[in-house]
Amino acid sequence: MQLYIGNKNYSSWSLRAWLMLAKSGVSFDEVMLELDTPEFYQTLAPLTPSQKVPLLIDNDITVWDSLAICEYINDAYLNGTAWPEDLAERAKARALAAEMHSGFYALRNEMPMNIRATRHVELSEAALKDIARIDTIFAEQMQQVHRAQGGWLFGQWSIVDCMYAPVVLRLKTYQINLSDDATCYLNHVLASEVLKRWIDAALLETTMVQADEAGTDV
Amino acid sequence: MQLYIGNKNYSSWSLRAWLMLAKSGVSFDEVMLELDTPEFYQTLAPLTPSQKVPLLIDNDITVWDSLAICEYINDAYLNGTAWPEDLAERAKARALAAEMHSGFYALRNEMPMNIRATRHVELSEAALKDIARIDTIFAEQMQQVHRAQGGWLFGQWSIVDCMYAPVVLRLKTYQINLSDDATCYLNHVLASEVLKRWIDAALLETTMVQADEAGTDV
Repeated sequence: MQLYIGNKNYSSWSLRAWLMLAKSGVSFDEVMLELDTPEFYQTLAPLTPSQKVPLLIDNDITVWDSLAICEYINDAYLNGTAWPEDLAERAKARALAAEMHSGFYALRNEMPMNIRATRHVELSEAALKDIARIDTIFAEQMQQVHRAQGGWLFGQWSIVDCMYAPVVLRLKTYQINLSDDATCYLNHVLASEVLKRWIDAALLETTMVQADEAGTDV
Repeated sequence: MQLYIGNKNYSSWSLRAWLMLAKSGVSFDEVMLELDTPEFYQTLAPLTPSQKVPLLIDNDITVWDSLAICEYINDAYLNGTAWPEDLAERAKARALAAEMHSGFYALRNEMPMNIRATRHVELSEAALKDIARIDTIFAEQMQQVHRAQGGWLFGQWSIVDCMYAPVVLRLKTYQINLSDDATCYLNHVLASEVLKRWIDAALLETTMVQADEAGTDV
């Protein structure tokens, strides 16, 4: 199985699929393509209609899109265990995952993932509203005892944690203060071994510096 | 079970969830809220964090987002049968559903759903690229014999057909010509009894006329 990803410092959507595979213990080969290079498009063109990463190829099965890759791995290898077991919890987890998948435009535009940077930017009202919503999601999930026991949004790790991992890194880079409960989740994610492996690799990347990086280095 | 939706003429995301429920044969009450009115926000505020439609309330379970509602109904009531049975087909269907869920911005922005209108608009290069991708998706799925037998993207009806139904209506409103194979799918969707029920209701709506309607009536 091959997972095609972009630069680890920048490619937030790649991170989701990579975390899903890394947490699942499924054996896979990682193929890193430098974003927006001729090689990137030349490699992906024959493989995927979307020409985007992440892209998963599992023998004759091709899956593009971060959420679809998470669902596929859960379906094919994990017997459905990567969503919460309880029906109501599973419904909420899927709603939260979908909310992230199709939303939070302002936050994503104004706070691009850039793991090795520490930045300060002036945010629009829409981005601040996105951050407030993220804070509410994290805090609400942490305020239940069993969340605290597992540390993840639904106690045990699930797909929704993959979907929100990039935003955790954005919040760190742009030095956003969250409520105590939300910070508790943020710290839990940042301390996880599997995310640390991604971050360490991102810090070693030296190839690409985005010209359009937002904000001021601090 | 209550499904909160917006105006049927305009609310493309509502249509997806409504089709899922209507096709599934699950009994539900439909609550239509006129988009962007004080009543809309007052009604949704205590019910959902996102203050968006569609919103499903099934006793103590609240599900927001069109894709999450489809997954929930499939999970809770249909024993998983609303995705293709074959693993590879299911993976592809989920990738296509996710691609629509998070993408096609240009098409969605420049061709808002407006069922009762017939329009012509000048489209950007990005929107034309979105349309070309839609054409490829529809045509590729129709070019397999078993698709033709069932008429839906994966032969039998599945969640991915819900996700692409609004774009079918947009293509009709804006008079976009597709390839023959893609047109075959478009016509199949437009002829379906369940979609006709939605369209008939949309045509009867007389309340709201969007000030920002794009294009020229023809």
